[in-house]
Amino acid sequence: MTMSTPLTGVIPPVCTPLTPDREVDVPSLISLVDHLVAGGVHGLFVLGSSSEAAYLTDRQRRLVVETVVAHVGGRLPVLAGAIDMTTPRVLDHVAAVIGAGADGVVVTAPFYTPTHPVEIARHYRLIAERSPVPVVAYDLPVSVHTKLDPDLVLDLAAEGVLAGLKDSSGDQAGFRAVVAGARTRHDITDFSVLTGSELVVDSALAMGADGAVPGLANVDPAGYVRLYDLCRAGDWERARAEQDRLFALFGMVGVGAADGHMGGSSSALGAFKAALRLRGVIACGATAEPQVALSEDEVERVGKYLASAGLL
Amino acid sequence: MTMSTPLTGVIPPVCTPLTPDREVDVPSLISLVDHLVAGGVHGLFVLGSSSEAAYLTDRQRRLVVETVVAHVGGRLPVLAGAIDMTTPRVLDHVAAVIGAGADGVVVTAPFYTPTHPVEIARHYRLIAERSPVPVVAYDLPVSVHTKLDPDLVLDLAAEGVLAGLKDSSGDQAGFRAVVAGARTRHDITDFSVLTGSELVVDSALAMGADGAVPGLANVDPAGYVRLYDLCRAGDWERARAEQDRLFALFGMVGVGAADGHMGGSSSALGAFKAALRLRGVIACGATAEPQVALSEDEVERVGKYLASAGLL
Amino acid sequence: MTMSTPLTGVIPPVCTPLTPDREVDVPSLISLVDHLVAGGVHGLFVLGSSSEAAYLTDRQRRLVVETVVAHVGGRLPVLAGAIDMTTPRVLDHVAAVIGAGADGVVVTAPFYTPTHPVEIARHYRLIAERSPVPVVAYDLPVSVHTKLDPDLVLDLAAEGVLAGLKDSSGDQAGFRAVVAGARTRHDITDFSVLTGSELVVDSALAMGADGAVPGLANVDPAGYVRLYDLCRAGDWERARAEQDRLFALFGMVGVGAADGHMGGSSSALGAFKAALRLRGVIACGATAEPQVALSEDEVERVGKYLASAGLL
Amino acid sequence: MTMSTPLTGVIPPVCTPLTPDREVDVPSLISLVDHLVAGGVHGLFVLGSSSEAAYLTDRQRRLVVETVVAHVGGRLPVLAGAIDMTTPRVLDHVAAVIGAGADGVVVTAPFYTPTHPVEIARHYRLIAERSPVPVVAYDLPVSVHTKLDPDLVLDLAAEGVLAGLKDSSGDQAGFRAVVAGARTRHDITDFSVLTGSELVVDSALAMGADGAVPGLANVDPAGYVRLYDLCRAGDWERARAEQDRLFALFGMVGVGAADGHMGGSSSALGAFKAALRLRGVIACGATAEPQVALSEDEVERVGKYLASAGLL
Repeated sequence: MTMSTPLTGVIPPVCTPLTPDREVDVPSLISLVDHLVAGGVHGLFVLGSSSEAAYLTDRQRRLVVETVVAHVGGRLPVLAGAIDMTTPRVLDHVAAVIGAGADGVVVTAPFYTPTHPVEIARHYRLIAERSPVPVVAYDLPVSVHTKLDPDLVLDLAAEGVLAGLKDSSGDQAGFRAVVAGARTRHDITDFSVLTGSELVVDSALAMGADGAVPGLANVDPAGYVRLYDLCRAGDWERARAEQDRLFALFGMVGVGAADGHMGGSSSALGAFKAALRLRGVIACGATAEPQVALSEDEVERVGKYLASAGLL
Repeated sequence: MTMSTPLTGVIPPVCTPLTPDREVDVPSLISLVDHLVAGGVHGLFVLGSSSEAAYLTDRQRRLVVETVVAHVGGRLPVLAGAIDMTTPRVLDHVAAVIGAGADGVVVTAPFYTPTHPVEIARHYRLIAERSPVPVVAYDLPVSVHTKLDPDLVLDLAAEGVLAGLKDSSGDQAGFRAVVAGARTRHDITDFSVLTGSELVVDSALAMGADGAVPGLANVDPAGYVRLYDLCRAGDWERARAEQDRLFALFGMVGVGAADGHMGGSSSALGAFKAALRLRGVIACGATAEPQVALSEDEVERVGKYLASAGLL
Repeated sequence: MTMSTPLTGVIPPVCTPLTPDREVDVPSLISLVDHLVAGGVHGLFVLGSSSEAAYLTDRQRRLVVETVVAHVGGRLPVLAGAIDMTTPRVLDHVAAVIGAGADGVVVTAPFYTPTHPVEIARHYRLIAERSPVPVVAYDLPVSVHTKLDPDLVLDLAAEGVLAGLKDSSGDQAGFRAVVAGARTRHDITDFSVLTGSELVVDSALAMGADGAVPGLANVDPAGYVRLYDLCRAGDWERARAEQDRLFALFGMVGVGAADGHMGGSSSALGAFKAALRLRGVIACGATAEPQVALSEDEVERVGKYLASAGLL
Repeated sequence: MTMSTPLTGVIPPVCTPLTPDREVDVPSLISLVDHLVAGGVHGLFVLGSSSEAAYLTDRQRRLVVETVVAHVGGRLPVLAGAIDMTTPRVLDHVAAVIGAGADGVVVTAPFYTPTHPVEIARHYRLIAERSPVPVVAYDLPVSVHTKLDPDLVLDLAAEGVLAGLKDSSGDQAGFRAVVAGARTRHDITDFSVLTGSELVVDSALAMGADGAVPGLANVDPAGYVRLYDLCRAGDWERARAEQDRLFALFGMVGVGAADGHMGGSSSALGAFKAALRLRGVIACGATAEPQVALSEDEVERVGKYLASAGLL
């Protein structure tokens, strides 16, 4: 499909189900896509952080995109992350995911290597030049260790370099600056501003954001779609109640990290996958190496979060 | 060649000469290897930070290792970086560089994805298990955003997981802890502690380090070999004078960053390559995308540093 | 007056007007208080960050509190910051500001000295034990370099140690956790959750916050009171428009920092004071040493922001 | 006494013994000074980090300086910290410690408030202008959250603003830059470069530093004086052995932090004071509020470090 911009709605970053020996579990991935489509989501984002893109080999990345694109069959736009350290390496991934059928690519600033704003701008310009599909910037300081400057994002939007922003920075003021700029600058059209937060989707949409890319939407896609629809309808009271329910559900991400025997990332990804297994969507909750696995007791606590949210 | 451990001496992280269109300049790379060997260095480290490993595609990385290994022909050990985000991706690079002939691999902790000490340990164990050649840990917090804990490094050394450490953390106290532990712990043998600093090689060797991996040794390999020999001979006064000369030479890394129009990394890598071109070692000073290039004026200032150090 | 808790509404952190030789300008301070009261604000917070508390000597701090308390005469509650590094030093400030008539104290976690969650809890408990007035926690990681944990804040609220939170962390998810906890935990009553942001007051109130402490309310108190009233009335569309107007006005904080000749803090404080002078509220825009002053050109640009917002 | 510059030798940051109810224990402080003088130290630094300056009230700070100055009676120079957030507050402390008899003042960059290099320079110039005694810059990024730039320090040295640097940054390359600059710049005379490290004193002196300010010298002043003398004599082998012994002794700082029930700072200060009590120098090991106290078991482990180092 050709992606119509701007992207709007709920676009989950699709988890990558793995087999116990850490290969992509294709049937489970297809089942997860069905679960998301049935939940009413408006697009899919594969090879993002919730997809464990950082842990997947090039071969596995390609398999994920091919599988999802083939199964979706054009019903929804499929964005794919092209996550790597610098421009030349990202360009290889861009070529790969487009070859596998992605409708758009999602790209961070350079990382690992210390960088500079001028280099970040050049990075996106070079990628857009060579990409036949829209490029969405991915602002994820917790991984990239630089924050995208709102004015830089807006300038690249005006140039036609960027088609959108996925903002997982947690910086609401910067997010608002992009939303406001995208609305008020006359040189910007069709630019999509998406929040990566699970927890302030109502606020983001109230500010004027176009949509959300919440990892927790893997677990409860219908909940996020409901939240989106309530916001669009201007029913802010019920939207807040739905967001508060999802906020409580998000507490699951802490089950493993609470006692310090693993980090927050392993805990969160493990919880999402445990929840998907408990809900019968995927076959196995394994996360990629070298992440620490949740214990049985921790998986049980994930189950309690699901039960409290009415999802079991 | 089979790498004899522990590694000692000066082991430059070999720059990767590029053509104006950013392909690996194989003749210049061979010329650079000749320059380093003629300088008396004790080993070579390809695909490190000074090699712009973060910017090279997989194809380019392989070409670099093959070229250097073939040209060295076993005269010196060749270490190769296997720089990527997580275990599964690093394992692919380990296989690639060993396939291309590397005598040892150099591996950081996981990056991009937030990590945890238990996961760092597991990462190195899984890699060592699958690597037929020695594994050297690379401590580079400026890129990896975690610091390797000295006790963890020593425990992995005792287990036989790690054959050495390249410490570019700038944390001299932690470095000393590893040097002291490697010397005093009875369960550790043949572990090589290498400083990644250009600036405190004399201090590191005085503490008991085994060697150094200074990027500036691309420019002045003979200087670092002289420094190493003076330290080994216990001639600390002349060692300090040589280190001070190299300290001053290192000032070249700031020529581009001084006025803020590029970052420190672009400036430093650009200066090393400009110096190599001015010294007639390589054909072109280009750095990989999206780095900012030094201006002609800045290159001229690199030349003044070379002249002051007696290298032009 | 006795402060009735929970605090609600708009509670500006009151700027401290200085004379050209950096003494407290008492007539201007009184004029500023009149300006804020006329704007309809619901309380005053002296000796916060926007008050340049970090720059005021003990003598100046006392003069500020005495002046404001005397002039307000009980019409509004007056909170005072007790900003210092550790418990014993904070306790001295708590005694001083209460002696000068403050109705409540605002206290950060320990800073300068590296700290630990257990010590932060102990810090607040010791202060509350010795303070006859309510204690409000001040979460300001940009200055304190630790972030208050939402669960710790809620536990201290339940214990009666804390009467409120001023959250200037910029972490909306953590803020929402405190708001939600304060509403749902049965062991918490009368706890006031206040945002320190200028830019997402509508979002904060939509989440259920009790009020806001925006530095920009010095410049436009009536605007923030209007925003507060619109939110309380559930008129989110007009609230958003008012917040967007204030968002644009806030752009003034960048006039000095844009070209890098001063930092963001000097630029913001200088802009607030320049705006107050241009609006005729205070006599002189001087900021405390060693801050860099705005140039005449930069002050002129502040004036343009005021004009665009209808404030000149 | 008039302080002769440049300062050289071992200048311990003097711990502040406290009574069980956290008042300054004057007899123990005098005993500690005697212990340090008997160890052969070359100066004393009160109200530094190891002195818990951040925790002492203004009254306690004054008592410490008066006590030490009176007891030393001019036998050694006494430096005093003037630790506070910004210029106006630091100036009050400078006046206080000079009034109490200090021979020099030690001052950090502004903290708590975000700052800028221009402001840091202005800060030191204003302080030097008003201080009748020499001003030593204190580089302590772990507390101040900015790093002093070597070139700025050297320029202020050349201007006569700064008489010395106490570098506790852990950045050996930056330290070397200051040492080298102080030696080679013709516009700098009598500038004293002191390391704040316990662990690399031999390296610092080998580079050309003038002295050291190690907190651990409270516990073993004679050891650090011996280390200093060996370095001055060029006996680097025995210096390294002595430094290695002190390195091992320094392990005591981790006894409390090992299991995470307190932070590293509480653990280190608690260990120094426990060691001083065990050695019979001070009466009580209490640290200031809100720090966590070492357990009896942890104190016992401090004793084992002392025994291993031959100090019990």
